[in-house]
Amino acid sequence: MRVLPVALAPKKILLIGAGKAAALKARGVLESDCELIVIAKEIADSFFDKRSVTIKSFELADAKGFDAAINATGDSDLSKLLWENRRELGYLLNCVDQPKFCDFYFTANARKDNLCVSVSSGGSSPKLAQYARDLCAAILAGGDFGKPPNNGEVYLIGCGTGGIDNLTIGALKAIRSLEVALCDNLISDEIKNLTSKTCLKIDVRKNNHALSQEEINDLIVKYANEGKIVGRLKGGDPSIFGRLYEEATFIASNGFVPRTIGGVSSAFAACQVAGVAPTIRDLASGALIVSAHLKGSRFNGDWIDLAGKTPYTIIVLMARGFASVIVKAARERGADLNVPCVFVSQIDSDQETSVFGVLGDLESMARQIAKPAVLIIGRCAALSYKSL
Amino acid sequence: MRVLPVALAPKKILLIGAGKAAALKARGVLESDCELIVIAKEIADSFFDKRSVTIKSFELADAKGFDAAINATGDSDLSKLLWENRRELGYLLNCVDQPKFCDFYFTANARKDNLCVSVSSGGSSPKLAQYARDLCAAILAGGDFGKPPNNGEVYLIGCGTGGIDNLTIGALKAIRSLEVALCDNLISDEIKNLTSKTCLKIDVRKNNHALSQEEINDLIVKYANEGKIVGRLKGGDPSIFGRLYEEATFIASNGFVPRTIGGVSSAFAACQVAGVAPTIRDLASGALIVSAHLKGSRFNGDWIDLAGKTPYTIIVLMARGFASVIVKAARERGADLNVPCVFVSQIDSDQETSVFGVLGDLESMARQIAKPAVLIIGRCAALSYKSL
Repeated sequence: MRVLPVALAPKKILLIGAGKAAALKARGVLESDCELIVIAKEIADSFFDKRSVTIKSFELADAKGFDAAINATGDSDLSKLLWENRRELGYLLNCVDQPKFCDFYFTANARKDNLCVSVSSGGSSPKLAQYARDLCAAILAGGDFGKPPNNGEVYLIGCGTGGIDNLTIGALKAIRSLEVALCDNLISDEIKNLTSKTCLKIDVRKNNHALSQEEINDLIVKYANEGKIVGRLKGGDPSIFGRLYEEATFIASNGFVPRTIGGVSSAFAACQVAGVAPTIRDLASGALIVSAHLKGSRFNGDWIDLAGKTPYTIIVLMARGFASVIVKAARERGADLNVPCVFVSQIDSDQETSVFGVLGDLESMARQIAKPAVLIIGRCAALSYKSL
Repeated sequence: MRVLPVALAPKKILLIGAGKAAALKARGVLESDCELIVIAKEIADSFFDKRSVTIKSFELADAKGFDAAINATGDSDLSKLLWENRRELGYLLNCVDQPKFCDFYFTANARKDNLCVSVSSGGSSPKLAQYARDLCAAILAGGDFGKPPNNGEVYLIGCGTGGIDNLTIGALKAIRSLEVALCDNLISDEIKNLTSKTCLKIDVRKNNHALSQEEINDLIVKYANEGKIVGRLKGGDPSIFGRLYEEATFIASNGFVPRTIGGVSSAFAACQVAGVAPTIRDLASGALIVSAHLKGSRFNGDWIDLAGKTPYTIIVLMARGFASVIVKAARERGADLNVPCVFVSQIDSDQETSVFGVLGDLESMARQIAKPAVLIIGRCAALSYKSL
């Protein structure tokens, strides 16, 4: 059954009963500006001890003049009587735990200032409704909620690894407030769809028509100067290979405050997909995150000298296209070709894959996966807890 | 005005008008199982082109037999007539944009399966209500929503840096589903309060009565064996110095699947607080994350040899208590004491601070801050975009 959620303007409400079920309903009603009158044979819940309750046996005439009536006595004969006379007496009826005698249902509510979020499962799953209510309440409770961003705000947003569950609540809020979204090529449709309908979405790094960093910088400042709320949507965390320095300094030097929002880095997400811990006591005392791909598609191989020779796990982003170059460089520099490694590709997609091997096998490993891929190199790669 | 949100059981609803405002209301009603009858003088919105509309001038008698009536004509004389007769005819009234003639208001709704989330601002800010609705809808849209975890599930949850905005949506969902939460000492009250009222919360690393890793492992498996949904709440991302290896392998070897949930690492969050980009093209080609603190409070200084000598930014976690040891080691090993660095402490709290300097100044810098603190070492530390 699909219910119609509405918000009742403050109404005069009659509650019949003063037990545990009645107390639950009374609490909900009293969070609103509705007037609540309670009639009961006796008080059976301490909630009502210090409240005004008319102690009497309910008669139908008592329901006159109310906009809504709640039967919390559990008495189904009374429910039937109230139901049959509700049109004539002009109230909406709710009989606790008797859906067939209900014009309306109570919802699981969370309030913050003037906002009220309510969740209903149409009676199918009150527990699930409460769980959803609690999640929504947590969202409302976060800092600055309800303070819409000012004009000319600029956000540099880490969008994680593509799935909504790997997005931070702060990123969700920022994305939803944008008027202009400049998206990197790894931003998933799932994330892009979180922008509002009126948000202008621009793909700045689509493979075939990528803008230069200077063009991107200019776009950001152009829209900010127009008073727009502008966001740069980046994969992972914006601090790591996100051109944060170039963009943030340009934004700041144009008089705007670059507001960064952290995200789940694909470097760590890859470890979790593979079941690999990049730091392990007495075995791997740190993690070095590098990119195989430098400005102008140049290969960066400085880190190869550290492979297998230091206590650090090396996590290489954008490594797939450079697999053969990496092996060649490793050979030339005398790196240990038997150091364990794992390629993790297409995180958060249906094609998410981990391929395990050693550094010397990198080319054949790369052939088994697609872009984008993260390469993890170090002894930890041979110790996946997912293989136990 | 604080409204009372309720969910109306499917009702018979009269809509007067067939223009743009009427179309908006009709869409909302038709998402429910309510029956909708439309009366209008003429069709003025294409939404109604292929729908059944009774073309006539409205008369009061037409409203008989309806549970609710919506006046979407904008005609305030009609609103007044409907308002004065609503009790006798027995309908609830909503006159679009005329709150004084409303028994109820429409809410901003999002639906998923049987769940309906609705948000109302009591008329004070429909835009804010829609924004909140959109956020809640995004939460419901994430993977696996509504599939409560099975008994005996074990989550290793990265809780970010303490604030709700730095928590992932996946972490929020997992935390909210827990029956037992084993919390590290850096887990903020804000995050702990997201657990349900019935969740058993255990501080496993309170300074004065920290449990051993073996005791923590045993607790996880004990509760999982009881069929409980167990979570290990860790600061930052669980992959980084979270004892992920020890716990995940123990959990897996006891027949449970360790489910990791990524978080915002304090290593990167610190960079953003300081306005420092740890990777900068042609200047810093990677980031090495280490911890100053090893098992048994031992100091880890292997990384000092890399300070100022490699293109990598070094991010040192738990560094504050080791400031003087770090400087001593740097001196002994001939590290460049003029390499820029920044200490970032108490992220996400009111005391969040950044202190800039060079490696040689570390002791006096440490005196200006409190625990927990992250130390960032590298040329990037002299290039904060927050100082522009």
